[in-house]
Amino acid sequence: MSPADWLVLLGLAGTAVFAINGALTAIQAARLDIVGVITLGTITAIGGGVLRDILLGVHPPEGLADWRFLVVALAASALVFVVHKPLARLVRWVTVFDAAGLGLFSITGTLAALHAGASPLLAIILGATTAVGGGTFRDLLTSRVPLILTSDLYAIPALLGAFGTWAIWALNWQQPLAYLLAGAACFGLRMVGVKFKLHAPRVQT
Amino acid sequence: MSPADWLVLLGLAGTAVFAINGALTAIQAARLDIVGVITLGTITAIGGGVLRDILLGVHPPEGLADWRFLVVALAASALVFVVHKPLARLVRWVTVFDAAGLGLFSITGTLAALHAGASPLLAIILGATTAVGGGTFRDLLTSRVPLILTSDLYAIPALLGAFGTWAIWALNWQQPLAYLLAGAACFGLRMVGVKFKLHAPRVQT
Amino acid sequence: MSPADWLVLLGLAGTAVFAINGALTAIQAARLDIVGVITLGTITAIGGGVLRDILLGVHPPEGLADWRFLVVALAASALVFVVHKPLARLVRWVTVFDAAGLGLFSITGTLAALHAGASPLLAIILGATTAVGGGTFRDLLTSRVPLILTSDLYAIPALLGAFGTWAIWALNWQQPLAYLLAGAACFGLRMVGVKFKLHAPRVQT
Repeated sequence: MSPADWLVLLGLAGTAVFAINGALTAIQAARLDIVGVITLGTITAIGGGVLRDILLGVHPPEGLADWRFLVVALAASALVFVVHKPLARLVRWVTVFDAAGLGLFSITGTLAALHAGASPLLAIILGATTAVGGGTFRDLLTSRVPLILTSDLYAIPALLGAFGTWAIWALNWQQPLAYLLAGAACFGLRMVGVKFKLHAPRVQT
Repeated sequence: MSPADWLVLLGLAGTAVFAINGALTAIQAARLDIVGVITLGTITAIGGGVLRDILLGVHPPEGLADWRFLVVALAASALVFVVHKPLARLVRWVTVFDAAGLGLFSITGTLAALHAGASPLLAIILGATTAVGGGTFRDLLTSRVPLILTSDLYAIPALLGAFGTWAIWALNWQQPLAYLLAGAACFGLRMVGVKFKLHAPRVQT
Repeated sequence: MSPADWLVLLGLAGTAVFAINGALTAIQAARLDIVGVITLGTITAIGGGVLRDILLGVHPPEGLADWRFLVVALAASALVFVVHKPLARLVRWVTVFDAAGLGLFSITGTLAALHAGASPLLAIILGATTAVGGGTFRDLLTSRVPLILTSDLYAIPALLGAFGTWAIWALNWQQPLAYLLAGAACFGLRMVGVKFKLHAPRVQT
């Protein structure tokens, strides 16, 4: 596969795990009907990339223009609705799917911004925005204060993944899979933060 | 009138009914002052079209660039503020105005996307987005979980109207009023859903 | 300094006061950690300008593309986190910083829209949008109904500042500092409204 193919594949994987996360959140938090579950799953999955493309001036955004992303998002969300009962344990994994999406989208978001000609600083910010954007829309739509503001170690892993992706790109490492290192660092830091309840310094009051 | 004139007329009608709905919601839900009522009415009215145009890369968005849409949105919202007392019964009609806007904007949103060169799939999605977008902003701004996620049969009528509009367009039916059939189907399905409390399948728990 | 330099300086000042306001809001309302404080401060600071640029089709938005805005927003937010304890009284000033940002951004937002070729009506609307946008994102992200809807005299000062800026621009007044008159009128009206609890007419029920 060409590097571009790998990038699409990583993007589709991120789309699937975020759609599963969004659909599980819908079921867990709000007992929505099938349309609500699919809508929330799809917005969680493609929202971050759509926001990035709006900011970059890429239109229509890849997540809407490329049918593969839409189909994966819709199908993964619908699948969750259908099989959620036998897979009730999946709901406990909602954080893991979110962290996986965070890692994958920090890679693809950063590379998409770099390919569109963004500066390193902007690419890292937009890469992290891609990673945290979908989950932020998910939280806004379900009337919750977004994880990006409240959760310990959520933005920092996304920025780490975006920074690592840029570093690998800048080093001109000719191995697409190398980017997975950056995504894995993002995923790992996020999960360590969840597991050990690590948090950034808080306001002392 | 030319087909383009009809399209503008349908868009202005949708703008007016959504502005009335948003302004009534503001009065009903939050007892806002005149600026709040006009702001919420206007955002409800032009928000869906603005979101569609941002996603399509049309700028400035039609709802901001064409003064007729702004004037209709502002005037309809202001009118609601002025006459709401003698017309207190109007508040009961808030759902009807919302359904009418849903039907009208599913037509104009889909056609705007098709005219901008969108694929059928994207045009139907953006047509439905135009229809549900304004109400979603309205709900977010008033701290409510959006109807698109919670309400039985809200997204499905919008998608039906957008699909019908695309079908009539694809059949090259040379009669602008034919599109009203698609809008009426959307409006009808939405109102039937409200009346009979129909809902899409829910999660069994 | 050239007029363009003055404009950047006013924009940076608005960015700083809105970042301080957003960071103080984060501390006051939600006891967020350092990442949450910096994120909310930065979004409050650059959100309005980013929204304006998206609507105008300017990409990437100035607030993301020009590193000076990002650095000022990040630094001012971080500073608040570090020094908030000795400066606890600052929290009482949260409204003053918000009003100052409102005044400064009503100037720079209107001029940015005029420079991008917007009509006077659109420029005034987008100028006011720039001024109120960041605070609206701040309120949405912290699950509050935005000030733009609920607060007495919030949108009206922003529109006044934008209108005054346009008027000075249309009169071709060759003195950049003249724009500060428009911003001061916005700031003054907002503070008078806060002080005397003035409000626009409300719905009689």
